[in-house]
Amino acid sequence: MTGRVAVDAVGGDHGLSVVVAGAVQAARRFGIPVTLVGPETDVRAELRRNETSGLDIAVVHAADAIGMDEHPAQAARRKPNSSIAIAIQEAKAGRAIGMVSAGNSGAVMAVALMHLGRITGVERPAIASTLPTLKSATLVLDLGAVTDPRPQHLVQFAWMGHVYAERVLKRPSPSIGLLSNGEEAGKGNQLVQEVFPLLAAATGLRFHGNVEGKDVPLGTVDVVVTDGFTGNVALKVAEGIASLTTQLIRDELTKTWPRKLAALTLRPAFRAVRNRLDSGEYGGAQLLGVDGTVIIAHGGSNETAIANAIRVAAAAASQDLSAAIADTLHRAGATTRADRTGVTPAS
Amino acid sequence: MTGRVAVDAVGGDHGLSVVVAGAVQAARRFGIPVTLVGPETDVRAELRRNETSGLDIAVVHAADAIGMDEHPAQAARRKPNSSIAIAIQEAKAGRAIGMVSAGNSGAVMAVALMHLGRITGVERPAIASTLPTLKSATLVLDLGAVTDPRPQHLVQFAWMGHVYAERVLKRPSPSIGLLSNGEEAGKGNQLVQEVFPLLAAATGLRFHGNVEGKDVPLGTVDVVVTDGFTGNVALKVAEGIASLTTQLIRDELTKTWPRKLAALTLRPAFRAVRNRLDSGEYGGAQLLGVDGTVIIAHGGSNETAIANAIRVAAAAASQDLSAAIADTLHRAGATTRADRTGVTPAS
Repeated sequence: MTGRVAVDAVGGDHGLSVVVAGAVQAARRFGIPVTLVGPETDVRAELRRNETSGLDIAVVHAADAIGMDEHPAQAARRKPNSSIAIAIQEAKAGRAIGMVSAGNSGAVMAVALMHLGRITGVERPAIASTLPTLKSATLVLDLGAVTDPRPQHLVQFAWMGHVYAERVLKRPSPSIGLLSNGEEAGKGNQLVQEVFPLLAAATGLRFHGNVEGKDVPLGTVDVVVTDGFTGNVALKVAEGIASLTTQLIRDELTKTWPRKLAALTLRPAFRAVRNRLDSGEYGGAQLLGVDGTVIIAHGGSNETAIANAIRVAAAAASQDLSAAIADTLHRAGATTRADRTGVTPAS
Repeated sequence: MTGRVAVDAVGGDHGLSVVVAGAVQAARRFGIPVTLVGPETDVRAELRRNETSGLDIAVVHAADAIGMDEHPAQAARRKPNSSIAIAIQEAKAGRAIGMVSAGNSGAVMAVALMHLGRITGVERPAIASTLPTLKSATLVLDLGAVTDPRPQHLVQFAWMGHVYAERVLKRPSPSIGLLSNGEEAGKGNQLVQEVFPLLAAATGLRFHGNVEGKDVPLGTVDVVVTDGFTGNVALKVAEGIASLTTQLIRDELTKTWPRKLAALTLRPAFRAVRNRLDSGEYGGAQLLGVDGTVIIAHGGSNETAIANAIRVAAAAASQDLSAAIADTLHRAGATTRADRTGVTPAS
């Protein structure tokens, strides 16, 4: 039995019913106790439409909700009783071991920073998620938290990715790649060229060097580090190309009756491929660097994606990442604001 | 009958035989006269292995070659008789209307700048290529020429993309999107936030606003503008995910005998999908902004990809892009180095 996970019941493009169904699925499939946070009457009504006997599902009322299009920082300040804020407070107060939201990701970040704060030594949290590869999965960060990071931020991202890959993904001595426009050491924009020697000098970090965009799906390294702007573009290109490819295949396979018949035989095969590529199977992204377990699920999450996000939250929360990250950054001398003073981190 | 296209015979991962076969294919399928540039004896020997009767294929000797791993600028200076340099000089001297190389792309850029120079008013050339989408194709630039562009460079990329989309892709009044980490006007890294108002103020440019990574495969706009670092990462992620997807499908479809049999029926369907996604079908990338037609084909080009690159070179060269770009930038007031003085371009 794991600890409880608090779930923002009203976040996501598909509304309350999908999130509630996902929470029920997580409670049944993974045995995870869940606290649904949202308008209590609506949440309870929705729960009654599900089979929940024997499941540990609590409800905590939140009067307010933050919309997908609201300005994150403003909404975070103006709506202290939003479902996001109340769910994060459940974690903060220790009534939950972590929280999941498929809502406004900027608002989740802002509220998490406000209530949970940063892990000691971390300057900026990053959004980290595993992406599917030919081998297993690669952790990529940052996917959009910091659009113009300084070199030292990327060094911290590398260490946070190292800790996550080791503890949650169970990769001993994980390899770290720096996303660039070429593999050679001199390649990259100015930021990458400044970060490369800092990572190369970091003792205890298995720095592979620069990696290219193709190395993400190839699974060349365990962790890919990049700025939040590039990471976000790369993630959305990847999702877009995967759905373009499957769309093109669907179009071709339904063009004629003989093809339709043959394709029928292959349905389990296509489902297996879709599952490998589906971001929902990977359970959302983790906000690494805040002092607590915060999972940002895809806005378009279906109920299985919500259930997987809850599973990932429980798994990550069991690892005490905050202490491990604080300790690792401290020992690496990577907590200093070294890039501003021109001093390279002690190593 | 179109003008001649000069082809670097020794560029590319697959060597001379593939480039020569691609040139022969272009001459036969598209009726394009080709000049192969490389070690004359080897090229002629390779030509004899192909059926070339009735085709207009010339050979020009180049004693030297630039390797894929050589430092671009150094190799460009030290090897005046490289196949890249001689092929570009064929274009410069008017004996060819354009050139194609699948070799060291940095060296192609350096040599092209050295011999052809920039179009009047252009500060930095960009690498532009069409990528497959659900609709037809989107032109993306820059794919790696300028890793740290200034805002004014991106404004010029937008105008060059506008001219290319109008003239070569035949899209009247093409829409232009700025690649960002969100669609809203305030989203983006610092560069994007500076470029957005410049593009919004550019009269005659149909600026759609910010687009996300997923909008490239969706075909939301005709032209996507980005810095060369992000563009290169996005391109290689896209190629990687497309090949991951087809690889996963291949693995699944060959797992059991019934699946193999059904998959046999579907081979033409899969071939059609692969052709839609294959970068080779799109004929390589154009170096936009140099005063001449220079096509950088993928290093991994097969003979069909080489033939398509030659076709694209002939099509682009027939459009007098240099004059059109010079004229457009001049009329848009986008030739000034406005971003350095804080003056927005006249519009």
